[in-house]
Amino acid sequence: MEIDLAIRGGTVVTASDTFRCDVGIRGERIVTLGENLRAKREIDATGLLVLPGGIDSHVHIAQPSGPGVVMADDFASATASAAAGGNTTVLPFALQQRGTSLRACVEEYRRKAENECYVDTAFHLIISDPTPEVLGQELPALLKDGYTSFKVFMTYDDLVLKDRELLDVFEIARRERALVMVHAEGYDAIRYMTERLEREGRIAPYYHAVSRPESVEREATHRAISHAELVDVPIMIVHVSGREAMEQIRWAQSRGLKVYAETCPQYITLTAEDLQGPNMDMSGAKYVCSPPPRDVESQAAIWEGLRSGVFQTFSSDHCPFRYDSPSGKLHPNAKSSFRWVPNGIPGVETRLPILFSEGVSKGRISLNRFVELTATNHAKIYGLYPRKGSIGVGFDADIVLWDPNRREVIRQEILHHGADYTPWEGFEVTGWPVTTLLRGQVVAEGGRIVGAKGAGRILARDVSAYAAPAGT
Amino acid sequence: MEIDLAIRGGTVVTASDTFRCDVGIRGERIVTLGENLRAKREIDATGLLVLPGGIDSHVHIAQPSGPGVVMADDFASATASAAAGGNTTVLPFALQQRGTSLRACVEEYRRKAENECYVDTAFHLIISDPTPEVLGQELPALLKDGYTSFKVFMTYDDLVLKDRELLDVFEIARRERALVMVHAEGYDAIRYMTERLEREGRIAPYYHAVSRPESVEREATHRAISHAELVDVPIMIVHVSGREAMEQIRWAQSRGLKVYAETCPQYITLTAEDLQGPNMDMSGAKYVCSPPPRDVESQAAIWEGLRSGVFQTFSSDHCPFRYDSPSGKLHPNAKSSFRWVPNGIPGVETRLPILFSEGVSKGRISLNRFVELTATNHAKIYGLYPRKGSIGVGFDADIVLWDPNRREVIRQEILHHGADYTPWEGFEVTGWPVTTLLRGQVVAEGGRIVGAKGAGRILARDVSAYAAPAGT
Amino acid sequence: MEIDLAIRGGTVVTASDTFRCDVGIRGERIVTLGENLRAKREIDATGLLVLPGGIDSHVHIAQPSGPGVVMADDFASATASAAAGGNTTVLPFALQQRGTSLRACVEEYRRKAENECYVDTAFHLIISDPTPEVLGQELPALLKDGYTSFKVFMTYDDLVLKDRELLDVFEIARRERALVMVHAEGYDAIRYMTERLEREGRIAPYYHAVSRPESVEREATHRAISHAELVDVPIMIVHVSGREAMEQIRWAQSRGLKVYAETCPQYITLTAEDLQGPNMDMSGAKYVCSPPPRDVESQAAIWEGLRSGVFQTFSSDHCPFRYDSPSGKLHPNAKSSFRWVPNGIPGVETRLPILFSEGVSKGRISLNRFVELTATNHAKIYGLYPRKGSIGVGFDADIVLWDPNRREVIRQEILHHGADYTPWEGFEVTGWPVTTLLRGQVVAEGGRIVGAKGAGRILARDVSAYAAPAGT
Amino acid sequence: MEIDLAIRGGTVVTASDTFRCDVGIRGERIVTLGENLRAKREIDATGLLVLPGGIDSHVHIAQPSGPGVVMADDFASATASAAAGGNTTVLPFALQQRGTSLRACVEEYRRKAENECYVDTAFHLIISDPTPEVLGQELPALLKDGYTSFKVFMTYDDLVLKDRELLDVFEIARRERALVMVHAEGYDAIRYMTERLEREGRIAPYYHAVSRPESVEREATHRAISHAELVDVPIMIVHVSGREAMEQIRWAQSRGLKVYAETCPQYITLTAEDLQGPNMDMSGAKYVCSPPPRDVESQAAIWEGLRSGVFQTFSSDHCPFRYDSPSGKLHPNAKSSFRWVPNGIPGVETRLPILFSEGVSKGRISLNRFVELTATNHAKIYGLYPRKGSIGVGFDADIVLWDPNRREVIRQEILHHGADYTPWEGFEVTGWPVTTLLRGQVVAEGGRIVGAKGAGRILARDVSAYAAPAGT
Repeated sequence: MEIDLAIRGGTVVTASDTFRCDVGIRGERIVTLGENLRAKREIDATGLLVLPGGIDSHVHIAQPSGPGVVMADDFASATASAAAGGNTTVLPFALQQRGTSLRACVEEYRRKAENECYVDTAFHLIISDPTPEVLGQELPALLKDGYTSFKVFMTYDDLVLKDRELLDVFEIARRERALVMVHAEGYDAIRYMTERLEREGRIAPYYHAVSRPESVEREATHRAISHAELVDVPIMIVHVSGREAMEQIRWAQSRGLKVYAETCPQYITLTAEDLQGPNMDMSGAKYVCSPPPRDVESQAAIWEGLRSGVFQTFSSDHCPFRYDSPSGKLHPNAKSSFRWVPNGIPGVETRLPILFSEGVSKGRISLNRFVELTATNHAKIYGLYPRKGSIGVGFDADIVLWDPNRREVIRQEILHHGADYTPWEGFEVTGWPVTTLLRGQVVAEGGRIVGAKGAGRILARDVSAYAAPAGT
Repeated sequence: MEIDLAIRGGTVVTASDTFRCDVGIRGERIVTLGENLRAKREIDATGLLVLPGGIDSHVHIAQPSGPGVVMADDFASATASAAAGGNTTVLPFALQQRGTSLRACVEEYRRKAENECYVDTAFHLIISDPTPEVLGQELPALLKDGYTSFKVFMTYDDLVLKDRELLDVFEIARRERALVMVHAEGYDAIRYMTERLEREGRIAPYYHAVSRPESVEREATHRAISHAELVDVPIMIVHVSGREAMEQIRWAQSRGLKVYAETCPQYITLTAEDLQGPNMDMSGAKYVCSPPPRDVESQAAIWEGLRSGVFQTFSSDHCPFRYDSPSGKLHPNAKSSFRWVPNGIPGVETRLPILFSEGVSKGRISLNRFVELTATNHAKIYGLYPRKGSIGVGFDADIVLWDPNRREVIRQEILHHGADYTPWEGFEVTGWPVTTLLRGQVVAEGGRIVGAKGAGRILARDVSAYAAPAGT
Repeated sequence: MEIDLAIRGGTVVTASDTFRCDVGIRGERIVTLGENLRAKREIDATGLLVLPGGIDSHVHIAQPSGPGVVMADDFASATASAAAGGNTTVLPFALQQRGTSLRACVEEYRRKAENECYVDTAFHLIISDPTPEVLGQELPALLKDGYTSFKVFMTYDDLVLKDRELLDVFEIARRERALVMVHAEGYDAIRYMTERLEREGRIAPYYHAVSRPESVEREATHRAISHAELVDVPIMIVHVSGREAMEQIRWAQSRGLKVYAETCPQYITLTAEDLQGPNMDMSGAKYVCSPPPRDVESQAAIWEGLRSGVFQTFSSDHCPFRYDSPSGKLHPNAKSSFRWVPNGIPGVETRLPILFSEGVSKGRISLNRFVELTATNHAKIYGLYPRKGSIGVGFDADIVLWDPNRREVIRQEILHHGADYTPWEGFEVTGWPVTTLLRGQVVAEGGRIVGAKGAGRILARDVSAYAAPAGT
Repeated sequence: MEIDLAIRGGTVVTASDTFRCDVGIRGERIVTLGENLRAKREIDATGLLVLPGGIDSHVHIAQPSGPGVVMADDFASATASAAAGGNTTVLPFALQQRGTSLRACVEEYRRKAENECYVDTAFHLIISDPTPEVLGQELPALLKDGYTSFKVFMTYDDLVLKDRELLDVFEIARRERALVMVHAEGYDAIRYMTERLEREGRIAPYYHAVSRPESVEREATHRAISHAELVDVPIMIVHVSGREAMEQIRWAQSRGLKVYAETCPQYITLTAEDLQGPNMDMSGAKYVCSPPPRDVESQAAIWEGLRSGVFQTFSSDHCPFRYDSPSGKLHPNAKSSFRWVPNGIPGVETRLPILFSEGVSKGRISLNRFVELTATNHAKIYGLYPRKGSIGVGFDADIVLWDPNRREVIRQEILHHGADYTPWEGFEVTGWPVTTLLRGQVVAEGGRIVGAKGAGRILARDVSAYAAPAGT
C-alpha cells in the first residue's frame, strides 16, 4: 500500500508493548506498522522512541481568573508550547460564568480557539451555575455535541458548588454518561484557615500552602467519593497532591467504586518549601497552585500510586500567569495576602520530560506506563480513543519522536508558553522530545515550532467508556 | 462514723472493679465502703449488684419538633421513666431556635424542668444559629455557668450548620474547652435522596432508612473529624449506627485524634427491616429515628466497637413521640412521605436492661464495661465526675440495685414514659433494675416511682477533662 | 514486503489497544500490521478478535503426585488441550525430587516433553531440596540456561520448605535475578487441621476445604511477603483464592514492595460447596484443589482484584487427575480421608473461555485487561517478552482468533485433556477460540487439533524484568 | 469495725476512679474505705496517691541463659528491687529445659523462690518441649495447681517451638483455659539475618537490632494471631516494640479476635541508637534485649496504643545481666558477635516511675490508665483478681503510696537489683514510690527495703477470665 511518510528505525512504544518497527502514514493516519517500510518521505528515528503524542487532559487557557488577572497564554501560545513539549492534543476548559448560558460560554471559547491552535484541542466544560435550565437542557445538548466531560469545583468563590449541586450534577452525569472531573478541596475549611492566617498576619505566599493542608483535600475527596457512591456515577479526582487524598481513592477503588485519579508534575518534584522563596518573599508566588505541593514523603506516596495504578492520568494542570506583572502573580493585592495570588503554574511543555526523566530514566515506572499515563488513558477516559492515544493502524498519526538519552536543563528561555518563568528553572532531565507530528505533519522539531497556526482542530469527543455506572 | 443508710450484702461494681461490700451513705453522699456496715436504715442487697445510677447523656425532652408535632414527654414523665429504668441523671438539650437568644432558650428549658424532675438533670446546648453574638458572648458565658457541652447538627432543615459554621463553633469550643457533640449525617445527601425517593413514589416509613444510608453517615463523620483535626479540638460523634461511620472513628483514634463516640440500643437490636412493619405500612413509623437502624452485620460491628473501646458512651437518644396521634408518628403529612414522620424513638427506660441483657448476660461485655458505658464515662466526659458516675467515697449516693438474673419482657404497659408504645415490645431481657436511689433517697422501686417530683436537681457541670486539645 | 499469510478483517487486541487491521506473517513472525494486506494464504477473521495466543504460566504436566497417583496428562495431551483452548505457550514445572539433582530432574522433564508438544513450552523449576550444591551450583547454571523462574512450596509433605530454606532460596533469587513463585499455604496449620478433622471423623472430600481455611493461606502469604521484604526480592504469589490473602498482597503493593499475584478460574467460578457433591460423597473429589475454592464473596473480591490491578496474571493451575480411577481422585485411600485425594483440577483448555465469558462478556473487565491477564503479563513476567505475549511487529505469530459472540457449553466430551471430567461440566460461556496459530501455523481449528505433535518448542527464557529488587 | 492500720488523707486511684478517702486495713486485707478512719497505726498519705501495688507480670529471675551466662538476680534481689519500685507482686517464669519434666522444673523454681521473696510471686510456665506427656499430663495438672498461664517462644535456639507445636499447645490452652503468652519474633529470619551480618563482619552489639527488624516481629505476630484464630484461643503478645506488630494486633482486635498485648518501658524511652554506644563499642550491649528498641516514631506509635487500648499491660520484661562480667554482657564470645550478648535488661524497679513520669506527668495517659496498665489488668488477665490489682474492700492490702510531684534521677546506685547498671542511668522522672505495703505490711520505704525476706508468698492463680474462647 502506498504510504506518504515512513518513520524508520525507531522503537514503537504503546501502553503495553515495545517493539522495533517502522511506522507508515498515509494522509493523517497510521496505516501500517512493519519492517523496512519505504515512502517518498522518510524520517530516520534510529535510536529514538516512537511514542503516541502526549495528550494533556488538564490545561487552562485564556480563562478569566479574577479581577485584573490575565492568564499568560492564549490558544496559540499554549498549543505551541504543548507541541514543543511533545503533545498533540490538549483538553482545556470552557468555563461557565455564573449567571450565563453554558452554551454561550462554550461558543466563546471555541471562537477564541478557532484558527489559533497548533495541536488538536477538545474542551471540557466547567459547570459553575447548575440551574435547571443548564442541567436539563444545555448540558445534555452539549454532551451530544461532543463535550462529554465536565469539571466541578468544591472550592473557589466563583466556582464552588454546594453538596446538593454536586449531587444534582452527578445525577445528570450518570444519566447522560458524562465523565465528571472533581477539584476536591473544601471551600469552607480553606476560607476558615485563610481568615485565621490573615488575622495572625501570616500573609506571605507560603501560607497559601498552610491554608489548605492535606486534610482539607482528603475531606473533600472523601465527600466527592461518597456523593458519587450515592448516585452510582464514576468520577475523576484531578490533581491529587499527596498520600491522604490518595488513600481515600485507593480505598474507594478497593471497594469496587469507579473512582479515577490524576496527578501532576508539581506533586512529584516540588514541595511547600518552594513557596517560601529564599526569604519568605513574593518569589514564592511562582509556585502557588492548588492543591499546593506537599513534601518529599508525599512525593514518594504519589510515585507509589503512579506505579500501582491508583492514578490513571498524569496531566500538567497548566494554568499560566506571568510572575513579574500586576495582572499575574504580583497582582496589586497579592502582597496584602496570599489569598490574592493567582493560583496556578505553567507546565504543558515540561510535563512529559519531567515524568520521563524522574519516572522512566530513574527506573520508577516503565516506558509503557509512561505512555499510558501521558497519552493512552487520556484518550480512553475522555472519549478520544481509538482516534488518539496510541500507535496502531488507524490511529491519527499523532507521534512524538523521543530521545531517551538526551540531557537537557529546563530553562524559561527554551520554552514557548506565555508565562515569564517556569517553576522548574534549572531542573535537569534525561529524555527529551525531538519531533512532534500532528496527524502526519511535523509541528515541532528541535525546539522550534514548524507547524501552522490553526492546523490544530477542535475535536468533538465520544462518550467515555469509563463513564458507565458500576452496575452496568 | 455515723451513717444514715447502709446497703448491705451486695456486689459493688465500678468501671474497673467488682467486689462484695456494704455501702454507707450519710446525707446525699457515699461516705464509706466496708464490711458489715450498720445503720438505722438498711437495704438488703443480697444477690444484687450495686451499680452507679445510670447517666443518660443523650435524651430529648419537650423539644419543639416541627409544626404540629409534640414530644411525648415533659420533664416529669421523662425523668420518672429514667428513674424506673435505673438512671439517676439525664442530660437533655436546650435547643436554640434560630433567630433567638441562646441564653433565653436555656432559661426557657430550665423553667420547664424546674420542680419537675425525678432525677438530676443537666442541659447540653444545641447551637442552631451561631451568630457572632452567640459565639462571642452568650456561649462563653453559658459555658462558665456550667453548660459545658453543646451539640451541633449536620442535618435537619432547622438545625443544620454549614461547614464554615461548624469550623467557627469548633474554634470557640477549643478556646473555651467545651465538648462538642456532633450529629453526623449529611444534609444535602439526605435531601437529594428524599426528593428522589418521593419522585419515585417510595414514600412509606421504610424509605426513611433508604434515604440516609451508611455512606451518608460515614461522609459526615469523616467531614466532622477533618474539621476537628483542622481546628485541633476534641469531638464526640453521637449515635453511631454501623460499621462505616465507626471505621472512620477508629481510624481517627488510631491516628491520635481525640474523637469520641456514642452508640445506642437501637443499633444493637433493631434493623431497617423493622421500619417495614408487617406490610410496609405506617407501623414502621414507630422505628423511624436518625440515623436509622441498619442490619445484623452492623449490629455485630457495633458490638465489636463496644468491646474494643471505639465507643465511650452508650446512650438512649430518647426522643419520644406518640404513635397513634396526629401530633406524633401519624402526623397528617406522614402518609404523604416518610419525610414528615417525626424522627425519634423512646428509650430512656429500656437502655440499661437492653445493654445488660444483650451485653453482660450474653457474655459480650463485662460488668465493668457496662458500668463504664452507662455511667462512669458519661460523668467523666460531661464534667460531672467525681460527683457522679461511680461507687466510691465522696460520690453522690446515686445507686441502682440490679438483679442480674431477673427475666423480664419489655412491654409498653410497664413503662413510665409519655409515648404510647415501645420499639422493644415483647423483647425479653435478663437483668433488671430493682431499686434506684438518687443522692441517698429511693426514687424508684419495683417498677414504681416513689421519689418526689422536683427532687431531681438541675446541675451545673465542670469543664470536661476530655475537652482538652490534643497538643495539651 | 512479501508475506506468507495474512489474517484479514479482524480486530487486533493488545493489552492496551484495540484496532481493526490485518496481520501479516512471514515465516514464524508477525512482520506487518496494516490495512488490506494480501498474501498467498489468507485467513478471514471478519467478526473475530485477533488476540495474542494465550500463555498459561501455571500448568502441571506429568508430575509425580504421590504413591500410586498418576497425572492424567502427558505433554502431548496437555499441550493439545492448551492449543484447543486458545493457548500457544504453556509453562509447566520441572520438579526436583528430594535427594536428587535439580539438573537431572530438568533433563528428565525435557526428555518427556521433547517431540511431544503441540504448543511452545518453557519450564519453571520447583525447588524441593535447596542444598548448598543445588543453590550454589545447579540453580545458577540452570538460570543461565534459561530456566529463569522457580516455584517454592510452603506446604505439602514432600515439597514444603522451612522458613530458613525460603530465605536462602530468596537470597539466591535476588542475586541471580530469578523470579520466585510461591505456593502460600501454611503446612503445619493444614496438618493440624487435617488431623483434627480426621479424629472427628470428618473425612469426606469436602473437609479438604475446611482443613485449609482462608486464614491459613493469609498467614503464609504474609509470611512469604515478610521474608521477601527482608531479603528485598520480588515474589509472585500464585493461585490466590480469596479476600484475605489478596488484602495482604494489596497492602504489600501499597507499601511499594514488589509482590505480584496470580489467580485462577476456580476462584471466580467455584465454591467450597462444590466439594460437597450432591451428598457429601466422593464426587466432591472432582473439585479438590489447593487452595480450595471459597465462597461467592471471595469470588467478588477476586474480581475486584482483577479489575484494580492486584493480580498480574490469570492462569489455570492445570493439574489433571482422572476422577474414576484408583490412580486418580478415587485413590484406594481417598475414602479413608480427604488427605489422600490428589490435589488438582484440569483447566488449561477452559481458562480463556471462562475469563472471557465471565469477565469481558459480562462487563467486569475490558478486552485489553483480558489480553494482559492471559498473555502479555505472563510473557513479561517470565522472560518471554517481546518474543511472545502481544500482537506487534517482530513477535512470534502466536495468535488466537476469537469469536466474542459464540455461545458454548463446556462439556467433557469436547475437551482434549487426559482427565475424564471437567469441573465446569455444563458451564455456559459466551466467547470461544476459533483458530489457534503457533508461530504462523494453525494448530487448532474448530475444536480439532490440526498441528503436528512436536511442533511446539521447548524455550529458554530471558531474565524477568520483574525480578529486579526494589532498590534497583 | 476494728482496723489495724489506716492510711489517711491520700487520694485513692483505681483503674477507673479517683477519690480522696482513707483506707482501712485489718490483717492482710483492705476492709474499709471511708472518711476519717482511725486506727492504732496510721500512715499519713496527705499529698500522696494511694495506688494498688504494681504487678509486674513479665520478669525473669534466676533463669538459665546459655553456657557461662548467669542472671544477675536471684529471687531475693529481684523481689527487693520490685518492692523498692512500688511493686507487690511479680510473675516470673518457670522454664522447662528441653528433655526434662515440666513439673520438676516448676518444683526447682519454687525451691529457689521459697523463703526468699520480698513480694508475692506467681509463676508462669515456659513450655519448650511440648511432648505428649507434657501436654497431656503435666500441663493440665499444673494448670489445676494454679499455674494458669504459660509462655511460648517463636525464637531462641533452645526455646523456639515449631508452628505445629504452637498449634498443639494452643489447643491444650483452649481446652484447659490457660492463657498463652507469645514471644513473637521469627526464629529463621533472625538466624538468616544474623549469619548474613556476621558474614559481612557486622558484629557489634548494635547489629543485634539490625538482625531482628520490625518486619520480623510483625511476621511472627501475624503468624501467632493466625494460629490463635484457627484454634480459637485467646493469646497475649508480649513486649510489643513498634508500630508494625502493633498494627497487626489492632487489626486482629478490630475483627473481634481475643488478642491481648503488652509493652514495656524500653519501647517508649530507648531506641536502637542506644545500642550503638558512643563508638559502636561493647557498651551498646547494655541495651541488648529482644525485641530491640526501635526509633522515636515507634515510641509515638506505642504511646498511641497505650492510650487507645491496644495494650492491656505494661510490664518490665526484667531480665538482668551484669554488664562488666564474663557471665553477663561481656561474655567471652560477645565480642565475636552480637549473637553471644545475653538478651535482656533490668527494669523491675524502674517500670512504674518511667510510665508515670512519661505517661501521667507528661499528660499522655490518665492516672486511671496508669493503674490499669501496671496493676489491675495484670491481676485480671493472670487470675489474681479480685485478690490483687485494685484498692477496694476485700482486696489484699497491696498498696503503694506515690508522690506524683517528686523528681528523681534514676541512677544505678539507688537501685536494688543485682545488675551493675541500669539502661536509664541519668533519666529524670517526676513521680516516685514512697512506701510499698504488702498485705498490710510496709516492705519498702524511702528507697530502703524494710520487709522481711520470705514475707512474699508464692501464689496459686485462678483461671483467667480472659482465657475463654471467642465463641463462649
